[in-house]
Amino acid sequence: MDDRAWLKPETSYESYGVEDARITAIDGAYFVNYSAVSEHGIATGLVETVDFRSYTRHGIIFPPSNRDVALFPQRVNGLYLCYHRPMPGEFGRYSIWLSSSPDLVRWGDHRLVLQGSEMGWDSGRVGGGAPPIWAEHGWLSIYHAADRQQRYCLGAFLASHADPAQVIARTREPIFIPEALYEVSGFFPNVVFTCGVTLVDGIIRLYYGAADDSIALAEAPLTSLLGLMTAS
Amino acid sequence: MDDRAWLKPETSYESYGVEDARITAIDGAYFVNYSAVSEHGIATGLVETVDFRSYTRHGIIFPPSNRDVALFPQRVNGLYLCYHRPMPGEFGRYSIWLSSSPDLVRWGDHRLVLQGSEMGWDSGRVGGGAPPIWAEHGWLSIYHAADRQQRYCLGAFLASHADPAQVIARTREPIFIPEALYEVSGFFPNVVFTCGVTLVDGIIRLYYGAADDSIALAEAPLTSLLGLMTAS
Repeated sequence: MDDRAWLKPETSYESYGVEDARITAIDGAYFVNYSAVSEHGIATGLVETVDFRSYTRHGIIFPPSNRDVALFPQRVNGLYLCYHRPMPGEFGRYSIWLSSSPDLVRWGDHRLVLQGSEMGWDSGRVGGGAPPIWAEHGWLSIYHAADRQQRYCLGAFLASHADPAQVIARTREPIFIPEALYEVSGFFPNVVFTCGVTLVDGIIRLYYGAADDSIALAEAPLTSLLGLMTAS
Repeated sequence: MDDRAWLKPETSYESYGVEDARITAIDGAYFVNYSAVSEHGIATGLVETVDFRSYTRHGIIFPPSNRDVALFPQRVNGLYLCYHRPMPGEFGRYSIWLSSSPDLVRWGDHRLVLQGSEMGWDSGRVGGGAPPIWAEHGWLSIYHAADRQQRYCLGAFLASHADPAQVIARTREPIFIPEALYEVSGFFPNVVFTCGVTLVDGIIRLYYGAADDSIALAEAPLTSLLGLMTAS
């Protein structure tokens, strides 16, 4: 373990590690959710910081098995929102769900948002990626999906501003696939996986993990990305 | 489907059925949580009623895979509480968790309460049973557990009044096992499973499903039940 890590495993829910941190700025503070991995399974924890020195722990916000939580940067209809990805149990497919919260800690009113397909690039699993971004035509999300050979690609969808459980449009084919040498080979080959995206001056900047080994950056105009979407 | 059923499948989360209803009286209303079963998995839904004629839906309070929710009949430290039983994902054992809520709809601060053992009567799975009962020495819960041959028995534990994530004492052996003909044979043989228990004048009355076929009643003095527990 990195001795200089900012967030280290401390609780019994983190004995195997803290992973896939996603940062969302909300109301002047930074909320960092992460996968809390232990013998009890994979849950999602939340900490809050203003300076990235100290932080306040908010405990486990989603019990096992649930990860890929992506917090919205602002309230919608008075409530905080997030996408999350429960793990299927005895049956059911991997799916992204929406839920709402009065305090970012306690979540409910869970609704299904998006599922992978039976075949193809998103038939293995799907899950939230970067925190959603407010764009003119809707909430923009870049998410990940894997096929049954565990090749991880990225897709995008646009959800209603008023009700982000409603997908307005989505890409049917992956927008980003492992191609570069550092994406197709490494600790976990054939993986591109994002936890953070920015939209500045019409340019999407996609920060992503490549083969679970390095962090890389890709850029595209928002208009190009939207052009790849079809109505849902 | 029973045409006279009080609660019928209505939403896309209930297409396979609504099961295992548990009723808790809180603040003058009745809250009924149930397993909402569909192609999306097994989730937990909540409705509220005052007269058992009409009801108000509160949606999905725990996303798949999560069932065996048992609501506490009163707030503790200002928050509503429940036990719930997330389904293990890629790893982790069946366990009962506690969480808290400001409104009975949105739940968080999930903490592990109780796990089954590696061997024996509770090595297959465990889960909440009846809503917890306030007893003099702690919150009393009757819960179910199954062994790896899917024989379902009942156990009991006592949790701290101030923090019901802390188990004070529990039974190590089952307190109730399938023995009668209607328990060992039926739709799902070798099952006793409770969703409701009362404590009146020192007598525990255990209403339980037998072999997923019929409803039966067993009674015992509370003192006898407590006598079977050992400190946790």
